[in-house]
Amino acid sequence: MKNVDALLFDVFGTIVDWRCGVAEFVSRKIGLVDPYEFADAWRREYQPAMAMVRSGAREYVPLDVLHRENLNKVLATFWVEMAEDERDDLNRAWEQMPPWAASCADLSRLKRQFIIAPCSNGSITMMTRLARYAQLPWDCVLGAGIAKAFKPEPRAYLESVGALGLPAHRVMMVPAHNSDLAAAQAQGLATAFVPRRTEYGFTQATDLEPTGDWDICAESLGELADQLEAMGPKHPLGQTQRDLH
Amino acid sequence: MKNVDALLFDVFGTIVDWRCGVAEFVSRKIGLVDPYEFADAWRREYQPAMAMVRSGAREYVPLDVLHRENLNKVLATFWVEMAEDERDDLNRAWEQMPPWAASCADLSRLKRQFIIAPCSNGSITMMTRLARYAQLPWDCVLGAGIAKAFKPEPRAYLESVGALGLPAHRVMMVPAHNSDLAAAQAQGLATAFVPRRTEYGFTQATDLEPTGDWDICAESLGELADQLEAMGPKHPLGQTQRDLH
Repeated sequence: MKNVDALLFDVFGTIVDWRCGVAEFVSRKIGLVDPYEFADAWRREYQPAMAMVRSGAREYVPLDVLHRENLNKVLATFWVEMAEDERDDLNRAWEQMPPWAASCADLSRLKRQFIIAPCSNGSITMMTRLARYAQLPWDCVLGAGIAKAFKPEPRAYLESVGALGLPAHRVMMVPAHNSDLAAAQAQGLATAFVPRRTEYGFTQATDLEPTGDWDICAESLGELADQLEAMGPKHPLGQTQRDLH
Repeated sequence: MKNVDALLFDVFGTIVDWRCGVAEFVSRKIGLVDPYEFADAWRREYQPAMAMVRSGAREYVPLDVLHRENLNKVLATFWVEMAEDERDDLNRAWEQMPPWAASCADLSRLKRQFIIAPCSNGSITMMTRLARYAQLPWDCVLGAGIAKAFKPEPRAYLESVGALGLPAHRVMMVPAHNSDLAAAQAQGLATAFVPRRTEYGFTQATDLEPTGDWDICAESLGELADQLEAMGPKHPLGQTQRDLH
């Protein structure tokens, strides 16, 4: 691994705790259902919905739209009746999620040395509102929203790297998911694995350990910062006006 | 004008002083030429280069590429010899520009109530690096980089508005240029004019006053904030986790 200038982060699961976030939002808005069961059911519809786009059976639509459609299915499963505008409101659960402990502080620390941006399957809308809610100090919003393609499609990574004006090897993908790392590595990006072992609750069985040859494995974003800082001095691209003069 | 949730800013001329920025950068790197004359000559190539893309004669390329091509022409005019990598370096002048006085503080103030983003003809690369350099606290980067179209093409505004998940009338365009406002207004955006009367130096003859029926005219971003705050309370979309709970 050479010096990197930018870090791209997966967001749902890696930066924010979507399961607790959705459960809390749902329990405030509905109350009648098991909120974790509801969150899991909603999330289970996520991959099949994106698969339709990835396969070309459907044109790209922002993830907000897929979540909203999936919500109709899940509400039907749970026998919940709800007006359309209330459903629109519930769909905003994905814009209001708690960050994992220390994410904001650790991202701010990483930002001092690196360009930082989300490379999520979430839309620009979701990423922007979520960043405001959770105080995530992104330099810009990349990922599916600018590529109009969902990870792990190569375009989602390559358009994000291209938008930074950098070669792929100077950009590091940072997710809690091995599959995301494998796809990023295949496109030439540097890789860092940060496990989130309770993303799916205390019985989680996947992504507990690295399953590939990743450049960095760190137990937290703080440890990632430690490891990156130990590698050498800042690169000029990561510097601000104050640093340069 | 109804309540707006987001403010889109023109950047070169409106937020940063490109002319002094380029002149200062050029004088550090070359030294032999009149730096303001050089800056003006470089900028004069900007509109004709984009016109080729707007007319469809050429596919969209990021503005970095156009500036780099234009630089070759300008260096030839000024009889300056320079290696390719030095030219690449000089092209980064557009990533390192001084903000107009108080821009950073005023943007931070506006960010407390509104989503703020650049809607510039600059690429995501330029906007991201410039934001780091000049400490511009954008929520996300919109504009030509995501639309793959240059203002005043409708798509540059409409894709930016769409990426925020908002109707056009809830988004306000804030440039120092009347032509930008006319194009934004034609697409249904709210409009605010903030003149920068020395963008082209002390003999500037254009954009000294509003020439259209804009929703707001303000002498500075601080005055824009005053006027917007006087219109009423914050909208939930502009609120952070701390505000909501």
